[in-house]
Amino acid sequence: MQSPSASYSLTVRLEITNKPGMLGQVTSAIGKAGGDIGAIDLVQVGKSTITRDLTFKARDEPHGQQIVERIRGVRAVKVVNVSDRTFLMHLGGKIEVRGKMSVKTRDDLSMAYTPGVARVCMAIHHDPQKAYALTIKQNCVAVVTDGTAVLGLGDIGPFGAAPVMEGKALIFKEFAGVDAFPICLATKDVDEIVSIVKAISPIFGGINLEDISAPRCFEIEDRLRALLDIPVFHDDQHGTAIVMLAALRSAARVAGKELGELRAVVAGAGASGLAVTKMLLRAGIGDIAVSDSKGLIYPGREGLNPVKAALAAQTNKAALTGSTESALRDADVFIGLSSGTVAESAIASMAPGAIVFALSNPDPEVHPDVAGRHALVVATGRSDFPNQINNSLAFPGVFRGALDTRATDITESMKLAAADAIAALVGADAAAGYVIPGQFDERVAPAVAAAVAAQARADGVTRR
Amino acid sequence: MQSPSASYSLTVRLEITNKPGMLGQVTSAIGKAGGDIGAIDLVQVGKSTITRDLTFKARDEPHGQQIVERIRGVRAVKVVNVSDRTFLMHLGGKIEVRGKMSVKTRDDLSMAYTPGVARVCMAIHHDPQKAYALTIKQNCVAVVTDGTAVLGLGDIGPFGAAPVMEGKALIFKEFAGVDAFPICLATKDVDEIVSIVKAISPIFGGINLEDISAPRCFEIEDRLRALLDIPVFHDDQHGTAIVMLAALRSAARVAGKELGELRAVVAGAGASGLAVTKMLLRAGIGDIAVSDSKGLIYPGREGLNPVKAALAAQTNKAALTGSTESALRDADVFIGLSSGTVAESAIASMAPGAIVFALSNPDPEVHPDVAGRHALVVATGRSDFPNQINNSLAFPGVFRGALDTRATDITESMKLAAADAIAALVGADAAAGYVIPGQFDERVAPAVAAAVAAQARADGVTRR
Repeated sequence: MQSPSASYSLTVRLEITNKPGMLGQVTSAIGKAGGDIGAIDLVQVGKSTITRDLTFKARDEPHGQQIVERIRGVRAVKVVNVSDRTFLMHLGGKIEVRGKMSVKTRDDLSMAYTPGVARVCMAIHHDPQKAYALTIKQNCVAVVTDGTAVLGLGDIGPFGAAPVMEGKALIFKEFAGVDAFPICLATKDVDEIVSIVKAISPIFGGINLEDISAPRCFEIEDRLRALLDIPVFHDDQHGTAIVMLAALRSAARVAGKELGELRAVVAGAGASGLAVTKMLLRAGIGDIAVSDSKGLIYPGREGLNPVKAALAAQTNKAALTGSTESALRDADVFIGLSSGTVAESAIASMAPGAIVFALSNPDPEVHPDVAGRHALVVATGRSDFPNQINNSLAFPGVFRGALDTRATDITESMKLAAADAIAALVGADAAAGYVIPGQFDERVAPAVAAAVAAQARADGVTRR
Repeated sequence: MQSPSASYSLTVRLEITNKPGMLGQVTSAIGKAGGDIGAIDLVQVGKSTITRDLTFKARDEPHGQQIVERIRGVRAVKVVNVSDRTFLMHLGGKIEVRGKMSVKTRDDLSMAYTPGVARVCMAIHHDPQKAYALTIKQNCVAVVTDGTAVLGLGDIGPFGAAPVMEGKALIFKEFAGVDAFPICLATKDVDEIVSIVKAISPIFGGINLEDISAPRCFEIEDRLRALLDIPVFHDDQHGTAIVMLAALRSAARVAGKELGELRAVVAGAGASGLAVTKMLLRAGIGDIAVSDSKGLIYPGREGLNPVKAALAAQTNKAALTGSTESALRDADVFIGLSSGTVAESAIASMAPGAIVFALSNPDPEVHPDVAGRHALVVATGRSDFPNQINNSLAFPGVFRGALDTRATDITESMKLAAADAIAALVGADAAAGYVIPGQFDERVAPAVAAAVAAQARADGVTRR
């Protein structure tokens, strides 16, 4: 069962009869119902009643409603209003576009706009590379989605996807000073998406693809990388892979094993599963077997699409067939990127010093407490357990480094450099409960940016 | 000849020999060359020299260079550095994307991003209208260009156009609190532009088309208005027309004439010329004749394209042929929206109490001092003469009103309401030198917004 979380926190406004002990009845009702009480604010003291705002965390939406019902059940308490703090936070959206200078006088306007701006336009027209110096291109990233694979919610469309894209833009600015803007596309056509992104690219210094379903996302990314002279990066693939490799390096260190000795099993052959697999292969992992909804992927399996057939040729050296769980016997690493489950017995059958990354969200493939009975290192995508594996450790710094060097591409070696930079921050401090830096570790984005920029220079993909 | 302007202002860093009278030699060199000296800052006092930053305005780029050469000619002065303030202002671009809330803790992140954001996404997925409440859509406008008709510079492409679009975004925020983002398209294909704008529209509450060449701009606007349920507004057409009508209402008041009595001549049948003409017809002007590069447009003129043929049917009641200048005889109003010129004698031939709006920029069709010898009211697009006619009086308030009501369209009557609101601010104070409010008149955007919102409600095109 999940713990109460701020993401499901409610503020209730209560009119409580002004008698001793009444507030205690309310708080104990919330406590008994499993709610986690935060702020209690006094709103108004009346003759016979006191109005208060109580904020509490719940486990999920139904749990929040249950708690409110419990409060309604307390005699002499009237629930005036219930507000959901997450929805309140989203009112009016989460980002804004602001001027970097004020325009208060005619002189300001004549420089920032007409007639002065005309000279700046012509300077760029004569040398388009000047767009980097004289426009927001140098610091600006498009967060592009078609809303087909939003979080674990599936194809909820471009409107439903917008809050995630705005959240991403918020994180881009907060963690790495990048100006990111959401582009939520009302089309699922691959050709159209490619030509739209190409057409809108002049103002951007990079393209972050987001929450686009597989296998369409592969083609879109490949074609855009070939067409554009700015970096294109599908975060669901490469962000996840970077953070995963970083965590695996630290976890292997804790287990006293070399990456080249590890045998891993990846559950999930979607965008992130494939990207993680490719990156681990590139980093030199011993062997890796990947499973999809039909079980393990092996050469010659019937009905493999071209992407999976290519994968089969590079993975699963022992040509294992059957279920994910059967492959876990004596395996060193389990990486869950599906929405399936894995039995405790399968985790127990892994090699000594096992590493379990159960990243399905909000419900990991195996509960971390259960996995922890058998595995040495357990990581999840959740913030309420140790070792949270989250893309926000990677993408802000990756784009910061790419923008700082005006990179034309984010190469495979730049991604490996990003992973290594994250792992290096953990370094010798690595422990079973610390294989990855925390999300608010301020060293991360600058370290990733520096590593990515240095590698971009080494790879010759920079403009400066 | 133009006056020195902030848009051509330079800051020169000078090492001046530390002797009495030296600074005076520099300032008088600048003054003699026609420069307008602003700030003089002390940078450093050395043993034998003093380093100073001198800022001065010039008329244009060559003039600025001339002045710098004059300074170099002063003995005992060394020019260390010359910087162009307009370019300095543009370094790194003029706008940024910022979070509206801080994300400093795990709780913040779990509400603004995963896992809390998922509930917000689903709420919008189930009811897309909630995008207005829960995303930036409610306050967000795309400034869309293909760079084909940028200011008076022509087809300079999407990179060259970017500084204008950023400037527009800056004005949107500064004057009306609107979050506008530049979309600079690397395509000139009308079909493609229409489908791109449609596809990117979910995050926006309005589309401001900008600097797209005629006649392509008409088709793009018409098709997008039909396709989208958010307002689409081509500022070069309608922004100009709104401000022009407002100015004409005040000018007619000054001349003691009714709008229905006026005979106007419009030079220029591009996007703005056509829009102004249509709007004046809708407002009930007496008669109006339009000319293009081939002279006056009249029914049956050879080779008229469909747009101009339709125009011919509605205008030029007297079926005048020949030049713009010939049509000015006894006309009440001249509106210049071309890059041509008009002779003083033609202005002199106009009816008593003539109104001359010479809007070509930076060189009006007739110099305002020349026109002023014969006309009662003279307006230009320039800030260094009275009666500056500038779109920034219209578009911020128009979109503010449309966004505030979540309008589905900007109707013709909403545009007329905007013009009337601007004219009403001048009202009975109208004078030959005051037919339009100043660009920094803070009453304008709120008044336009209120009028547009009220008319949107009257027209039944609002969502709230």
